[in-house]
Amino acid sequence: MHLLGLEHLSREELTGVLDSARQFVGVGRTTAKRTDLAGKVIANMFFENSTRTRLSFSLAARRVGAETIDFSPGGSSTAKGESFIDTARNIVAMGVDAVVVRHSSSGAPHLLAKNLPGVSIVNAGDGAHEHPTQGLLDIFTIRERRGTIAGLTVALVGDILHSRVARSNMHGLVKLGAKVIVCGPPTLVPPEVQQFGVEVSHNLDAILDRVDVLNLLRVQFERQRSAFFPSVGEYAHVFGMNGTRLKKCKSDVLILAPGPINRGVEITPDVADGENSAILDQVNNGLAVRMAVLKRACGMFS
Amino acid sequence: MHLLGLEHLSREELTGVLDSARQFVGVGRTTAKRTDLAGKVIANMFFENSTRTRLSFSLAARRVGAETIDFSPGGSSTAKGESFIDTARNIVAMGVDAVVVRHSSSGAPHLLAKNLPGVSIVNAGDGAHEHPTQGLLDIFTIRERRGTIAGLTVALVGDILHSRVARSNMHGLVKLGAKVIVCGPPTLVPPEVQQFGVEVSHNLDAILDRVDVLNLLRVQFERQRSAFFPSVGEYAHVFGMNGTRLKKCKSDVLILAPGPINRGVEITPDVADGENSAILDQVNNGLAVRMAVLKRACGMFS
Amino acid sequence: MHLLGLEHLSREELTGVLDSARQFVGVGRTTAKRTDLAGKVIANMFFENSTRTRLSFSLAARRVGAETIDFSPGGSSTAKGESFIDTARNIVAMGVDAVVVRHSSSGAPHLLAKNLPGVSIVNAGDGAHEHPTQGLLDIFTIRERRGTIAGLTVALVGDILHSRVARSNMHGLVKLGAKVIVCGPPTLVPPEVQQFGVEVSHNLDAILDRVDVLNLLRVQFERQRSAFFPSVGEYAHVFGMNGTRLKKCKSDVLILAPGPINRGVEITPDVADGENSAILDQVNNGLAVRMAVLKRACGMFS
Repeated sequence: MHLLGLEHLSREELTGVLDSARQFVGVGRTTAKRTDLAGKVIANMFFENSTRTRLSFSLAARRVGAETIDFSPGGSSTAKGESFIDTARNIVAMGVDAVVVRHSSSGAPHLLAKNLPGVSIVNAGDGAHEHPTQGLLDIFTIRERRGTIAGLTVALVGDILHSRVARSNMHGLVKLGAKVIVCGPPTLVPPEVQQFGVEVSHNLDAILDRVDVLNLLRVQFERQRSAFFPSVGEYAHVFGMNGTRLKKCKSDVLILAPGPINRGVEITPDVADGENSAILDQVNNGLAVRMAVLKRACGMFS
Repeated sequence: MHLLGLEHLSREELTGVLDSARQFVGVGRTTAKRTDLAGKVIANMFFENSTRTRLSFSLAARRVGAETIDFSPGGSSTAKGESFIDTARNIVAMGVDAVVVRHSSSGAPHLLAKNLPGVSIVNAGDGAHEHPTQGLLDIFTIRERRGTIAGLTVALVGDILHSRVARSNMHGLVKLGAKVIVCGPPTLVPPEVQQFGVEVSHNLDAILDRVDVLNLLRVQFERQRSAFFPSVGEYAHVFGMNGTRLKKCKSDVLILAPGPINRGVEITPDVADGENSAILDQVNNGLAVRMAVLKRACGMFS
Repeated sequence: MHLLGLEHLSREELTGVLDSARQFVGVGRTTAKRTDLAGKVIANMFFENSTRTRLSFSLAARRVGAETIDFSPGGSSTAKGESFIDTARNIVAMGVDAVVVRHSSSGAPHLLAKNLPGVSIVNAGDGAHEHPTQGLLDIFTIRERRGTIAGLTVALVGDILHSRVARSNMHGLVKLGAKVIVCGPPTLVPPEVQQFGVEVSHNLDAILDRVDVLNLLRVQFERQRSAFFPSVGEYAHVFGMNGTRLKKCKSDVLILAPGPINRGVEITPDVADGENSAILDQVNNGLAVRMAVLKRACGMFS
């Protein structure tokens, strides 16, 4: 079963994955490894740089007993003029059950899903489109801390325009009944984002006192080819989360950041490492969510 | 026991490896993993880019219970002025039973075989010399489909000059009694190739009706430093396999391509994905052949 | 328990690690694998090129039953502006017990040790500072061959200035009672090295007849930004170990070289491959020492 994005998952499917993930928290660490996916082969195909997502998927796969094969385009036949699909098809022919794919082009996982019958595709981030497991782990982290999503006010702050994480969060959070505010400079928050059923704000200070969760998106220096804000310093001044702004929030506000974070830009170190931060929880929960997603991809539900 | 090339294997040895490989088809997928090589360590040393061959050897090794260590020259001491042989010797000193080596220089595996006593070398492709496991898997695929090699007419089409795959195929096929035709432009089919006991043709259309198997070699854009044919379009026009040419063949002609394929150059998509194509079988059979080769390299015969 | 360097280990701790390593010689090769570290996760973070050290740690970890995750900065979030510590912190949050780190900056492992509570750091080489597991395996190799370290005269020859291997050897050998001579051109043997309790020599020929062990450091072409000696030929002439010089040594002199070696520079092939050489023993012993170090890092002593 594919996981291409959160946009087309029903509320029941979303809840199902989140519920399933709970049993995987701490697997391989506080409890023994599992054998759910013994005999299954997961191919990790990362056509774009990644540390944490690649390692997280790889570790998650092994903790539920799957075998993994890793493909990185550096040492690859893509340099020999082979098409993206042929590369995947050949890897799949080795007997792969699920392909985890990251690609800089939006829609690349969908292309694989159409062209590789009999194998499940898991989107690990495609261009500026979706990053569904990141969305799931953000939502999972909020739900573990607060017990529910419905009724919460969640702000996504920063570069909404380029952010696949923002898109997956919006789709999932709205579907589960959260009030979502997207907040950033007008150049980075496109007006059409309102179609997702979210509120748009360009003033972080004005929304601080009514949010339950702040998800601070990374300023993606490497994606910006033109200047979307005057300077990093100015961005931090207007949209960066810091101790002063934290005091304006509810005392139990939950701070998320999908990382890798730019300390001093979207978040100051005291907030990143403070009591309201769930940043490292996110990493741990990411493993559990990915175990659940891989099990689902291999056709097993729990 | 080394596997440096098919040139110096006897017909009995060739048949032995092919027979042995049959038991490994589907291991780890349709049947359980095996423990033939439990406690053995296989080092994969790929000094040249590779996706499928590297993954295939790695997966094959694990499916028969071996441990693998991977060496890629990117993060390596070869940048520190260490010789190729010293690098291998040091890796071997960690307790390696067999080394799978790919190198851009013809003869590199032979150099290792001479200098590393007590360890078996498996050639995974050396320059334009040989690629014996590819040759074996092509031959294995033909034999599985047709029951035998002797008496078949097999055409190798394309860039014979630069192709280590062609060399290994010629050695193996001729030894097992096939009639081999090599077919390509005069610039890519050197006259001396006739010494291998093969027929030379420069006209694909003229041989189509008498071949049982077509093995379509990849146009190796990355190896060509000078122009061996006027243009890619012209190559495809004269030597590319397409639907029109397929109709001129016997109805059960078998189409192989070692890949990675250039769609629209040596083969059109309809032929690559059609009923006569055994391209994805080759990938699967590659795993079985490599399990047999690794077992043989570790001194175990079956 | 961290292993940041040999400088701050007590003689008892040093002896403890060496004693512990003896049980690991041949594990996974001549004896079965062990499960000492089953359920533990070791992260290998190599920010600097490495073949043998990375493979040795990885293989050692697996032979005592640990799981490994590999981070190489090539496919990484360090390109996204994330700090070194945040990268490590995020990897550690996936449930890592010990981090093996190599970095071009001296002190990088200490920085991690300060900033990552609850995880053990093992220094796999930091700048020109220390390379403690290399020091330990050199010392282990000497002790296995000679039974003891105390009372031996050990010469470290070559580039002392840039050598983290020399630093770790000096600290460990002096602590265990060896007489240490450092020998090299004045440009590569800084006067302040005497503070480590070692003798300084600039004349290799003058010390040959009184040494029990020669540890020939690699000339680190890649670290030298200015010229520390007139030419490679001249270096080999004055400080290179060769057959003529070997005859001036005690007949049972032990030749070590941490490698990767430059044949014909610091050592000639006949000496590297001769009877007095323990170079390949070092590689094998490196595995045993690293198994002991990883077990200690995971809080288990034996």
